[in-house]
Amino acid sequence: MDAVTRRAWAYLSRVAEPPNPELAQLVCKVGAVEAADLVRRRDRNLDDRLKRSTQARHELDCAESDLDILDRMAGRLVTVDDDEYPGLAFTALRHVTVDDKRPQAHAPLVLWTVGPASMIDVAERSAALVGTRAASAYGEYVAGDLAVGLVERDVAVVSGGAYGIDGAAHRATLAADGVTVAVLACGIDVPYPSGHSALFHRISRSGLLVSEYPPGMRPTRRQFLSRNRLVAALGRATVVVEAGVRSGAANTAAWADAMGRMVGAVPGPITSASSVGCHTLIDGDAKVITRAADIVELIGRMGELAPDLERPVSELDALTGAELAVYEALPRRGSRTVDEIAVTAGLPVTDVLGPLTMLDVRGLVTQVDGCWKLAKR
Amino acid sequence: MDAVTRRAWAYLSRVAEPPNPELAQLVCKVGAVEAADLVRRRDRNLDDRLKRSTQARHELDCAESDLDILDRMAGRLVTVDDDEYPGLAFTALRHVTVDDKRPQAHAPLVLWTVGPASMIDVAERSAALVGTRAASAYGEYVAGDLAVGLVERDVAVVSGGAYGIDGAAHRATLAADGVTVAVLACGIDVPYPSGHSALFHRISRSGLLVSEYPPGMRPTRRQFLSRNRLVAALGRATVVVEAGVRSGAANTAAWADAMGRMVGAVPGPITSASSVGCHTLIDGDAKVITRAADIVELIGRMGELAPDLERPVSELDALTGAELAVYEALPRRGSRTVDEIAVTAGLPVTDVLGPLTMLDVRGLVTQVDGCWKLAKR
Repeated sequence: MDAVTRRAWAYLSRVAEPPNPELAQLVCKVGAVEAADLVRRRDRNLDDRLKRSTQARHELDCAESDLDILDRMAGRLVTVDDDEYPGLAFTALRHVTVDDKRPQAHAPLVLWTVGPASMIDVAERSAALVGTRAASAYGEYVAGDLAVGLVERDVAVVSGGAYGIDGAAHRATLAADGVTVAVLACGIDVPYPSGHSALFHRISRSGLLVSEYPPGMRPTRRQFLSRNRLVAALGRATVVVEAGVRSGAANTAAWADAMGRMVGAVPGPITSASSVGCHTLIDGDAKVITRAADIVELIGRMGELAPDLERPVSELDALTGAELAVYEALPRRGSRTVDEIAVTAGLPVTDVLGPLTMLDVRGLVTQVDGCWKLAKR
Repeated sequence: MDAVTRRAWAYLSRVAEPPNPELAQLVCKVGAVEAADLVRRRDRNLDDRLKRSTQARHELDCAESDLDILDRMAGRLVTVDDDEYPGLAFTALRHVTVDDKRPQAHAPLVLWTVGPASMIDVAERSAALVGTRAASAYGEYVAGDLAVGLVERDVAVVSGGAYGIDGAAHRATLAADGVTVAVLACGIDVPYPSGHSALFHRISRSGLLVSEYPPGMRPTRRQFLSRNRLVAALGRATVVVEAGVRSGAANTAAWADAMGRMVGAVPGPITSASSVGCHTLIDGDAKVITRAADIVELIGRMGELAPDLERPVSELDALTGAELAVYEALPRRGSRTVDEIAVTAGLPVTDVLGPLTMLDVRGLVTQVDGCWKLAKR
């Protein structure tokens, strides 16, 4: 990408609050350089809505310094024209809206990214692990455990970089040498929350930091809600690990659901406030997630099913109804005659002999002096 | 009921392993006295299957002593002919079967009961709370908490009298002065498990002990499975509080489901082995139960819906998208001009004034020297 085009994209990234469908349309029609020029000049042929939405910032041109910051972080500007732009993942974003407080779910025009991971690869096999900042020790443990299980199954872990569940998922993924993506609601150079600045640095070294917002932008509620749609779009499934009765995680799940993606939630103690949101989701359409294999089943290739739970097996499982009745008619200690067994089991004498022989063959009973007793185990 | 009829019922209760549909058919046709006589004499016109199933015990007549035990416990023999027989509750049992190890789910012919509660009343408004004997402290707490909530809502609590979840449900119901029913897999005079003999005594004083088996019968696997169908039938809904990967509680839930009754399950930590069965049920068709009101919603009268969860409300909830954007464009400290606000919010200046006025009216912002700042809260 030449310097002029790059500056045009950076300018467009800041000039309107993303996502802005009119701006996307214009860029699609005339290209980034021409679009930036038209907006900057407030060309009289500009769409009225676009004129309004770019009015406040059209003179604000920090493209040069924004790109300097990106370069110093060795980051990339990934645009809709780029090979790395995960168009397929964002296709589902078109025309989706969840409620009127939220901007419409259009695909992003420009993404500011730092890190070696490729967004295309990530979007191919990934899961979003999200949850409340007010996580319990249980929630953080489970987030970490699921993240490690996903890494073992070659799944990238997408989250929002927040305290609590998000942080636990990112950290565990890094610890397991997996690929993790943090989608930020602020500029990639803004350490928000500040306690995660070292974590973001580590993610930028092995995974990916992604933001729709130019450098320096502080996060706002609107941006958090808008960011959630990108978390949901970059994860092939969204799993809520813990969420209170009101939670941004439930919002991310709503985005995923609106995009037709699978949503899962982890159950927890009903006595825990931070599992209330998960139970509400499960009571709806969310899948119950109890292990990483359940998530892989949601996102995996055809036939990649979670193995059945291991069930302890008892020797008595293989017995027929009559065999079980005869077996249970024998006392723990002492022995019984065939007639006594018949009475206790409520079976005709003739129906007791066959089962006794079969139980004998299985080594479960033995015969002593014409009476039967349980075999010593 | 005259003494002869009563003895006939008691005899029939023991002569074949219940439930026995051929015996029930015969009793229905000729009455208990005549049926007992025919079986005892091994009448040649008897159905062949019935002849076989009563062969081992037809000479065994402990009716007299069985009734003595019942009388000493001040109990009642409740038969299909009885007013107290909850025929409606048992209607669903007809022709239901879950798997071939289990006897078919026919309605019981005779029930041995002790306690002041009426089975008809119980069956009208009741819930079965069941679960694993290997309950966790969490499970026992939740069982007790749900039981108390059910008592507050005039719901009788049915369970199986076992250690763990069953015991916790019975005990909490008694403590809250509610009605609890223990359906036993052994004779009503058999203290099984022995550690619950005092509990059974208390239940027999204020609630109800119920068994399909005559006095003295020890429990067997077959009887446990058969008993579970009565627990499911006497509860308008069945709720599994905790269950391992293999659990009798899941069996009770399967009975309830087969009868077309509602099944609920309580989620728990995914790290807990005793919640695995609940999560499997929830992953199927079981409702998520997080409070007693959820159970009442399953069993209650029309319109008896659980209240919505209380959601904390923020003053910002009522703001429009533009108002929120303007509000968030103001810094925590210091003030901004209208133009500055417009740039930060990405809105035209003309779209900032209206929202500012509305925010001022709500007391969220104030104007100082032509600039705007967040109001002190």
